Formats: sequence, C-alpha cells, structure tokens
Amino acid sequence: MKRLGIALLMLSGICCAQTPGGFVPASTNVWGAEYPRVDASGKAEFRVKAPDAAKVQLSFWGATKLDMVKGADGFWTATTAPLVPGFHYYTLLADGAELSDPGSHTFFGGGKDANGIEIPESGSTYYLPLDVPHGQVREIWYFSKVTGTWRHALVYTPPSYDAQAKVRYPVLYLQHGGGEDETGWIKQGHANFILDNLIASGSTKPMIVVMAYGYARRAGYVEPDLTGKPMGSPEMMKAMQAMSQAFEDDMTEALIPYVDSNFRTLADREHRAMAGLSMGGMQTFQITFDHLDLFSYIGGFSGAAMGVVVGDQKLDTKTAFHGELADPAAFAKRVHLVWIGVGTEEPAMMHAGIVRLHTALDGANVKHVFYESPGTSHEWQTWRRDLKEFAPKLFQ
Amino acid sequence: MKRLGIALLMLSGICCAQTPGGFVPASTNVWGAEYPRVDASGKAEFRVKAPDAAKVQLSFWGATKLDMVKGADGFWTATTAPLVPGFHYYTLLADGAELSDPGSHTFFGGGKDANGIEIPESGSTYYLPLDVPHGQVREIWYFSKVTGTWRHALVYTPPSYDAQAKVRYPVLYLQHGGGEDETGWIKQGHANFILDNLIASGSTKPMIVVMAYGYARRAGYVEPDLTGKPMGSPEMMKAMQAMSQAFEDDMTEALIPYVDSNFRTLADREHRAMAGLSMGGMQTFQITFDHLDLFSYIGGFSGAAMGVVVGDQKLDTKTAFHGELADPAAFAKRVHLVWIGVGTEEPAMMHAGIVRLHTALDGANVKHVFYESPGTSHEWQTWRRDLKEFAPKLFQ
Repeated sequence: MKRLGIALLMLSGICCAQTPGGFVPASTNVWGAEYPRVDASGKAEFRVKAPDAAKVQLSFWGATKLDMVKGADGFWTATTAPLVPGFHYYTLLADGAELSDPGSHTFFGGGKDANGIEIPESGSTYYLPLDVPHGQVREIWYFSKVTGTWRHALVYTPPSYDAQAKVRYPVLYLQHGGGEDETGWIKQGHANFILDNLIASGSTKPMIVVMAYGYARRAGYVEPDLTGKPMGSPEMMKAMQAMSQAFEDDMTEALIPYVDSNFRTLADREHRAMAGLSMGGMQTFQITFDHLDLFSYIGGFSGAAMGVVVGDQKLDTKTAFHGELADPAAFAKRVHLVWIGVGTEEPAMMHAGIVRLHTALDGANVKHVFYESPGTSHEWQTWRRDLKEFAPKLFQ
Repeated sequence: MKRLGIALLMLSGICCAQTPGGFVPASTNVWGAEYPRVDASGKAEFRVKAPDAAKVQLSFWGATKLDMVKGADGFWTATTAPLVPGFHYYTLLADGAELSDPGSHTFFGGGKDANGIEIPESGSTYYLPLDVPHGQVREIWYFSKVTGTWRHALVYTPPSYDAQAKVRYPVLYLQHGGGEDETGWIKQGHANFILDNLIASGSTKPMIVVMAYGYARRAGYVEPDLTGKPMGSPEMMKAMQAMSQAFEDDMTEALIPYVDSNFRTLADREHRAMAGLSMGGMQTFQITFDHLDLFSYIGGFSGAAMGVVVGDQKLDTKTAFHGELADPAAFAKRVHLVWIGVGTEEPAMMHAGIVRLHTALDGANVKHVFYESPGTSHEWQTWRRDLKEFAPKLFQ
C-alpha cells in the first residue's frame, strides 16, 4: 500500500508534459490528471475507460448530450465546441450507467458529489487565488435546537481578521442553490477568492461571509408519505413549506446567534446582509422580508420572490412582501440594497420571472439593482459575477 | 432548474423510511440516499444502476471483488459479509468501467475523489461529533517560495481558541497517506472530532493541528522523463527524493513559519509534534530527524523509517537517524515521544517492517511506544486509534 502510495505520488508528478493542440489539464482536475483538458478557446476534451460499453455520452446538465468515440484502447473521448467560461457540472453515461471520472474532482451538486470542469475566462482573474492577502474558510459545527442536530457551516473570515483582534466585522449570509450544499460557494463559486480580491482592491469592506447548509428538518418532524404526490400538489407544498420554515428558524434562531457569539461581528441589521443563488435566492427573500429587524441588504442571484407577480400584473404593495414596500421611500431608507440578478441565457421561464419582478418593482417605485450577466445561464459564472458586483455595495 | 432544486430538496427528505433487515443509510451517504446501507453486524448493502452491463463488481481496495446481482429494474445489488468497523474506500466496476455511486460522498484517496463507506464500531464514539465544544477546521492558503505556488492546508483550532485570545497553543503537524490529500484527516479520519472529544475529556492538551498537502515540486524543477523506468530504479528514486525533499523544505521553510506567524502557537520544538500515516509516517521520520531543532514528538502510524533495519540486523545507532540515537538516554530527554503504530491485520510486509523497527529500537535501548491496533489493516480505523492514543501523550 505504501508502494502504491508512492507510485501514485510519482505518477501524479510525471504526466502532463504533452499538451497537443494547446490543451492543458483543467484546473478542476486532481493533481497529475491529463484529462479532462481545455484549450484557450474554451473547448474541452474528455476521456474515460469503458471497454465493453456500446455507447458512452458526455452530458452537461440541461444541455444536449455529446456522443463519445471509442478508441482501440477501450477509452472513449469527446471534444466539445467552445464552452461558456466558468464552472460546469458534467456526467459521463455508459449504456445508462453513470461513470466516475477519476481525473476530475467532485463538487456537490444535483444532490451528489458530481464531476465538474472549469473553463477559464480570458482576462478574468477576480475569482482566482492572486498574490493578495487571503482570508480563511472555517468549518464550524453548531447545535441547532430547531433541528435537534449538530449542523455544519462554512465561515469566511477576511485577511485581517486574526491580526486585528479588536475589530468587528459586518456579515453576509450567502446561500447555495437546490441540490448543492454549503461547500458550493467555496468549491464552485470561489467566493473566498472573490472577496480576497475585492477587499485587496479597496472596493469592498472586509466582511465575514457565512455559508449555511440550506436544508433543515424540524426536530420531531414526521415525514409525510409523499408517494405518488406530484410536484405542486398541496401535500408537496406543505412539506416544502415545513422544510423552508425550519431552515428560516434554524438560521435566525440558531446560526445567527452562534455566529454573533463566536465571531467578532457587528451584530445588528445595519451590518447584516443575505444573498443566495436560485433556491438560496428564494430563501433569502423569504427570510429577509420575514426578518427586516435582522437584515438591511438583500440579494437574489437567479432566484428571488418570483411568484409575487404574474404576467403583466402590477405589484400589490399592500400585500406583497408583508406590505413592507407600501412606502417605497421609507423602505429605501430601511433596506439599503435589493439586488436582483439573472443571466441573459437562462431558461426563458427563469429569465422572464426575474425580469417580471424587476419591472414590477420599478412600477411600484421600489429602489433596487437589476443585474444581467451577459452570455451566461443558470450557472456559477452568473453567480460569481453577481457576487463580484454585489459585495462592493454592502456596508458602505 | 429551480424546480429541479426543490424536487431534490424534497426527495432528500422523504426517502429512507423503510430499513428492511435493520439496514440504515451509511453516515457517509449524501442526504436522503438509501444506499449504501449498513446493519448492526457491519454488513453493507450496495445498489447501483447499470442496465446494460454484463458484470458488475464491488471492490474494497486490496480485497477480493464481490460480484453484484442484477435485478429486473437494471439495478445491481450486493450485500457484504460483516466488515471491519471504520472507513473503507470502495469502487463499483461495470465491465471494466468505473461507476460513480451517487448515493455516497467522495473522499480523496488513491489519487481521486473515491467513494467510501463508514461502518459503525459498536461502542466507539470517540471519533463522532458529540455534545462537546467543537473546534474549527480552517482552510488556509500560504505562498511557498519553495514551490513557487500558493498552497492549501487545513488547520484545526481547539474550541477555546477564539475565546481565549491571549493563550498560545502547541502544534501537531499531521500528515495523510500516499494517494490522499490534506482533507483526509478530517473527512476520513475525523481528527477534529477526535481532538474535540479528547480535549473535552481533559486527557489531552488543547492544541492546534496542521494538515498539509503532502506533495510538492520545487519551483523550476524539471520533470525527468521516467517512461519505462521501473519502481526502485535510480531515476525513480532520484525523482522521489526530489519531491520528498521539496515537501520537507516547504514544511520547514514555508508552512511552519506561516503557521507561527498567523496562529497563536508556542513556536518552539518543545511544543511542536509531527505524525503521519503510511507515506505521511515516512515523511514524519525524515523531516523530524532532519530537524530535531524543530520537533520533539514523533509519530509514525503504519509508516515510519522502515528501511533502517533489514532482517535481524541490529540498529546501527552510529549511522541510523543521523546518529541521533547514539546516546539513547540523551535522546530520550530530547525527544519526548517516538510512536510506532501498526494494525495487526496489515499486509505481512508492512506489519513485519514496523515490528522490525520496534524490535531494533528496543535492542538499542531507544525509548518509544509501540502500538498495535487489534483487528485492523492499513486503514483509517487503525489511524484514528493511533491518534486517539497518541494525542494525549503530547505536550504533557
């Protein structure tokens, strides 16, 4: 086993000398893995062993599958057209079975540790580890009376945190999307590097960023039997609301008090923000509007309170958002930022829903920022850009 | 996509009601995954989809492969005999292709993000998250002039660390094995929970634990062409030594100074220990004996300086370990602990090598602790036990 270890150690140091056609190993690869690899145009090459498979396909989630081609050595390969820069989940499928790609690290998405590939964006370094002071990402465990369990969260502390032992910091609560977990904003999103770079540039206030696990089940909650109940059925909706409310209570009654007790925070609404992507954006709008006593900055990245307005309907400011928007001028004084972001290439329904909310807020004279990420879909590059534009507006 | 997210969120809450035969989902599973599952006797059941495969096998690394059985639904299942308690890597193989098991989390081992399963050990709670104060695990990035790169490490800070802002702590440097990385001691080993529990019991001094990435390539190092060079060839040995020396220099010239500058350490040899498993144990013996000015506690878990004595040869204390053992009494005053651990069921060559070193040290009157983990092989349960017995002996 030791020999195996050493052999692996060595093998990991000796590959990758050749990069035909300008392809280099993806930054998401394990050390020493030659595939998958990418070129400057954004093309990616994949290679996987499946000697006896009849058909092997490469799938980027939600996009068309690409047929891979079998070589005499039992390995299948595929080269993509240039991909949109950023992080993409992918799956390799052999005759209906899901293959593992040992060359690539895994990233929690779609409810599993999935493969992913990073496509560099020419000229973009804001989410890379540059030669600037780096903050820490800390794993914490806190006991939640709401769920009756120990829960795991990640906390980014800014570069100056340990050295300046008297300084207190504002806090951004930053949530992952559905099917992802609290590791997403670090592993896929590079939120730590984005903050490091923004803080180093002087554009952004040093802040603590808390990334919670966005699923919760109240202690003693009895799972309903949802067998055969379709999405949108009353039983499903009720179960979803129960989870959603459990997460809200966990955040406001367990996590926030824990963070304020264990980190040097500025523990008031003026210094507390929340944002999230997709499902995390919906959670953000729910939690912040339920608790404007706790938050004064709100960000929805490709996810917000999208069911509030339907079609060309106007925003009913008396009922929407608990009536908090009834006096837009008062609201703008109280809530310093409402951010609504979306990628221009997102699925039509998603894009339209976000735009509809934006238009309705405009119609109701509610001050907010609407941001469109050019050329990106419902994906991490959209949300990295959201964070890059959103964070400098906090706590100023 | 949002709907997919919500569906996943819901699905993850509604499974697992049935546990036929006393089987429950493994603790290493993703939330809501019913398989793999384990029973109280240590048996494990696996299930994976591969509708068109002719043969699917379950492999625990180094052990015999188990044939899985195909069901009418295209899923293959297998139930193991009772397994040794602890963490085991496994691979699912379909006709020579490696499948991913979406139900299980991945753990970096064998040079890839591999699947793993936790088999509970009856009565053992020392590596579980109990109701005690928890330390933090911090991701740090440090720039190494040795490698010319930013490097990633994990740092465990004890529960009291932030609250007692004036206290300084001793440091244990704790290394992973070959094919693993700096995440191994947390994700597979649960080193943080082991330390939390030991510290809470009062048996162990609060300490900082630093887990480094055990591979390094010196800046400007040109990879030799090792094509066709067998293991053990002079070229291979030279390349291995280059990597090994680069890691030693990175640790002593970059990492230790970084940790001592950025954490409240007791920055002297009396308060610095190093230990490691397998390859990490060999690194420990190399680095500590090269730098007894830096370390005064030494631990080899299933890996140490095993080539020092061959067969029944006596330990040549004049030459071995740079002659540091020439005066065993003086050495025992200078180095407070030499720990040599091994599992009783390890491969014969490994077990014999460790025992030979232990016997030779005894023969040379060199004070040390020899620890055998009963019933375990070259695996994480051995190393968790090593750490549990080793840590209380540090810094007393």
